[in-house]
Amino acid sequence: MAAEDSATGAPPYSVVATRVVRLPGGVAADDQVAVEEPLEIRVDGQAIAVTMRTPGHDEELAVGFSLSEGIPAVNARLPDDLAANTVDVDAGGFDTSVLRRNFYTSSSCGVCGKGALDAVAVEAPRVESTLHVAVPVVERLPDLLRRSQRAFAVTGGLHATGLFEPDGTLACVREDVGRHNAMDKVIGWAHGAGLLPLSDHVLCVSGRLSFELVQKAAVAGCPLLVAVGAPSSLAVELAEAQGITLCGFVRTESVNVYTESWRLDR
Amino acid sequence: MAAEDSATGAPPYSVVATRVVRLPGGVAADDQVAVEEPLEIRVDGQAIAVTMRTPGHDEELAVGFSLSEGIPAVNARLPDDLAANTVDVDAGGFDTSVLRRNFYTSSSCGVCGKGALDAVAVEAPRVESTLHVAVPVVERLPDLLRRSQRAFAVTGGLHATGLFEPDGTLACVREDVGRHNAMDKVIGWAHGAGLLPLSDHVLCVSGRLSFELVQKAAVAGCPLLVAVGAPSSLAVELAEAQGITLCGFVRTESVNVYTESWRLDR
Repeated sequence: MAAEDSATGAPPYSVVATRVVRLPGGVAADDQVAVEEPLEIRVDGQAIAVTMRTPGHDEELAVGFSLSEGIPAVNARLPDDLAANTVDVDAGGFDTSVLRRNFYTSSSCGVCGKGALDAVAVEAPRVESTLHVAVPVVERLPDLLRRSQRAFAVTGGLHATGLFEPDGTLACVREDVGRHNAMDKVIGWAHGAGLLPLSDHVLCVSGRLSFELVQKAAVAGCPLLVAVGAPSSLAVELAEAQGITLCGFVRTESVNVYTESWRLDR
Repeated sequence: MAAEDSATGAPPYSVVATRVVRLPGGVAADDQVAVEEPLEIRVDGQAIAVTMRTPGHDEELAVGFSLSEGIPAVNARLPDDLAANTVDVDAGGFDTSVLRRNFYTSSSCGVCGKGALDAVAVEAPRVESTLHVAVPVVERLPDLLRRSQRAFAVTGGLHATGLFEPDGTLACVREDVGRHNAMDKVIGWAHGAGLLPLSDHVLCVSGRLSFELVQKAAVAGCPLLVAVGAPSSLAVELAEAQGITLCGFVRTESVNVYTESWRLDR
């Protein structure tokens, strides 16, 4: 499977037809919206989470999510009945009783499910990559990402994460109604492609940068995280602690670098 | 307490100074980012969730979150030590053992924490309000919301939810790094103001409409939900099932109505 083929293939079930009345004219028309459906993620047979996601690349999503949570996912598979909206992660005999006890307290989800404040961070080694990337490459990543978003073009309603090589070559792009999911899908794809840790890659997200997105990048070992939007305070703090270069408000001819700016070559 | 005073007060701790290097020029400068910090929500003494939120209006957030989850919150209070990042909800002796068992399976969070697919929806009665709102009012809500976002103006990094009267008068606006939190804060405020159910009000959100935002509006009994961005498929489905009028891509002179368009007067 070529990365390029996989990179831009928006699955047909990521959008669905709906009816809309356009005001003030009042004309009824056909429209398309991004599909949002629950997916139950199971690790070694045990249900650990349900995420509201856009269907497609569910195995990658499950693997990426698991890895981000510190679960040693090997791979994932869908059941015969796709309508079941479940996916099974093989974690090679990981002790799910530990998981069961700890999962809800260590999810990197933006809202809820955590049992204690001190459990919001999943442990990850500091990113030591000496990767350097040219500023003009970083400047054009958001545009490259946007142009590869097939489903967004139709619905206007999907977040995206793109994985790029240091020269700006797109390796993989994934779209989802949930921004965490889009990044989980990319990380899951990278796992399958044998690319983890992402020491020589750049992640670019279509929106804002929250704590959990930086955490996912940290667990994946990615040294450079680029966003179209603004970072939060905790995103900046975590990037600093993990040695990740964090870029926000990235436009053509304009990049804000919040941490580790030495990786960007002018 | 006047609603107007409360409506536009962005707490000073919602933004924090950071350093940024602006490329390609390479100038180091002071900047401000939206604060993101964990908040542990406790119901009758029992920790039930941690949300990554922007500090401020934490009591409203906790009450709104609890109500959205079907927990009969009376009010909430902060501990003496604000740095503890906890908030205690008084649910009047609600059986937290039931909560303990069910909470993780019924969170309306967009990601994780749910134990079963059939539990994603919190039960709420169908919204029967006969409210009518003029299209020109709806068209200007996003602009009114944006102009009332104090912290967004500084950071560019915050979602907002606004509560409006049918003539477009702003009742309350709340900002947060998490869009669920912004709506929870507004619903918590409305609870304290004695305005629930929101049969005669309009909710307007700064971004896209996911399932969980429609669910929160449904539990609050709000008949009209307006968004700057796109709705997801499940957002449209739930709005239809709950009898809520859903408007997306709202601009001056342009509104997409996905459900129950009879509430909009041209």
